[in-house]
Amino acid sequence: MTVGVVGLGLIGGSIGLALRDPDRLIVGYDPNEANANLALDRACVDRLGSLAEVAVADVVFVAAPPAKVVDVLDQLKFLRGPDTVITDCTSVKRIVADWAESTRDPLFVPGHPMAGHEKSGPGFASAWMFRSARWILSPLPFTQKSAINRVESLVKAMGATPLQVPADRHDRHVAVVSHLPHALAALLVQLADGLDDKNVAGGSWRDLTRVGGVDPALWSQIFIGNRVELGRVIGEMSKRLAVLESDVVAGNEKAVLDFFIAAQEAKGRQTTSAGTTSETTKTKNLKGRKRV
Amino acid sequence: MTVGVVGLGLIGGSIGLALRDPDRLIVGYDPNEANANLALDRACVDRLGSLAEVAVADVVFVAAPPAKVVDVLDQLKFLRGPDTVITDCTSVKRIVADWAESTRDPLFVPGHPMAGHEKSGPGFASAWMFRSARWILSPLPFTQKSAINRVESLVKAMGATPLQVPADRHDRHVAVVSHLPHALAALLVQLADGLDDKNVAGGSWRDLTRVGGVDPALWSQIFIGNRVELGRVIGEMSKRLAVLESDVVAGNEKAVLDFFIAAQEAKGRQTTSAGTTSETTKTKNLKGRKRV
Repeated sequence: MTVGVVGLGLIGGSIGLALRDPDRLIVGYDPNEANANLALDRACVDRLGSLAEVAVADVVFVAAPPAKVVDVLDQLKFLRGPDTVITDCTSVKRIVADWAESTRDPLFVPGHPMAGHEKSGPGFASAWMFRSARWILSPLPFTQKSAINRVESLVKAMGATPLQVPADRHDRHVAVVSHLPHALAALLVQLADGLDDKNVAGGSWRDLTRVGGVDPALWSQIFIGNRVELGRVIGEMSKRLAVLESDVVAGNEKAVLDFFIAAQEAKGRQTTSAGTTSETTKTKNLKGRKRV
Repeated sequence: MTVGVVGLGLIGGSIGLALRDPDRLIVGYDPNEANANLALDRACVDRLGSLAEVAVADVVFVAAPPAKVVDVLDQLKFLRGPDTVITDCTSVKRIVADWAESTRDPLFVPGHPMAGHEKSGPGFASAWMFRSARWILSPLPFTQKSAINRVESLVKAMGATPLQVPADRHDRHVAVVSHLPHALAALLVQLADGLDDKNVAGGSWRDLTRVGGVDPALWSQIFIGNRVELGRVIGEMSKRLAVLESDVVAGNEKAVLDFFIAAQEAKGRQTTSAGTTSETTKTKNLKGRKRV
């Protein structure tokens, strides 16, 4: 089979690497020539082609920035083969769900791999990017079952787990688990910029700000694309932060203790991609909580 | 020489392990018998002793919870040897600086190892906990140089880098780089508790919430202990979050792009404990920013 990849950045490049197989021909296209050549040099694709050549593959992955994706889908609509299945990788699903609803395209499967990296570009692409990750698919009522199946089998071939989630629920979910954390990491590094000492130290700092310097162009598009859901969760976060602030300033020991107990309990109920319950909390619960 | 350790939890246990040496006798004390025995079983200390026995060591590390540390210092004042140097490990330095100022003790050196773990107790103690970490010391004008030197040489023996920082500057710094990140992690896991799907996925989520379930008793004491500085930085964070919220909700692309550019630039100016500038940002800057 042939697989097309439009957009040979971190995600598109990783899709190509993850799908390499003697039985698949991977053809890639990127309007940025440097990206395209680096992706070819790194063997992310078997060969480069024009958008028209890529568009006739059996399955086309569109890994374009959120602000460009609808443009690309519009172009592919006229270039595609009659049975070509198209899927995308956009972090906000409302954008492409709107496009799908307006075209009622039965062979387009909105998708979003829940994986990434704080670095960008095909130079950081890797074959194992999607291993153990979930790959959300948000098909619409008119999406063909066979198209979904074809995308799912490629997702599995990359080591990821496909999971169907409606677009709006996806967008609410990522607003909390991805977009808000990126906002907080960016706010933290800005806040720390006011300190005398730029050596900011500590494991928790390193982890919480790993994504504090992500690609501004990409992430501003994601934030604007998901502005309704993200605005809502930032508002909710603000409310909770205000309560914590007043409890801390007032020295309300009981309230601050309850705050951390609620957090520890919530963490105990959550699982990570790997499917395991938070180890930290399990250990703590076994040992019992020592109050002092 | 003899080293005393009061409080055989994660930090006290790790100090004992990190200082193990044929030339040092490590004597430990913990009012919690289970902790004390586990620390002895794990060879965190050479032997256990009463508080009075530990108090006559050449150097005593006090690794007690913030709410208990002044109590312990008061008791040690009457039990210590004439030349015993005492140091502590409390995350908030104002608490012990106040104690030092009231007693004008020349042999007490306030300290804080900038290392830790989301798990607690001597079961998670490790000999390499402090390697490459900074160990803040906040001596006062009347603190004896020889006492500071003795603590610094043990800190170096543990693989850490001693750094003198006044108590108030320390507390402002950790409010931003440690206490606020812990607050945000705890808020995130609570916010995600409202989602339908408890599998919250993604590398950034895992990193940003690693410390979301930390020991409630310990961390509520830290927050209350540093309530003035922490209240101030939470207030500052709230203000910035409100600006971001209104820009996101309004769909202000330019403002959100500038927000991420400012974050990326700030991250580029920051270094981690290891002393290296953020690799992410350096890479990005070399490649130039692609605007789309």
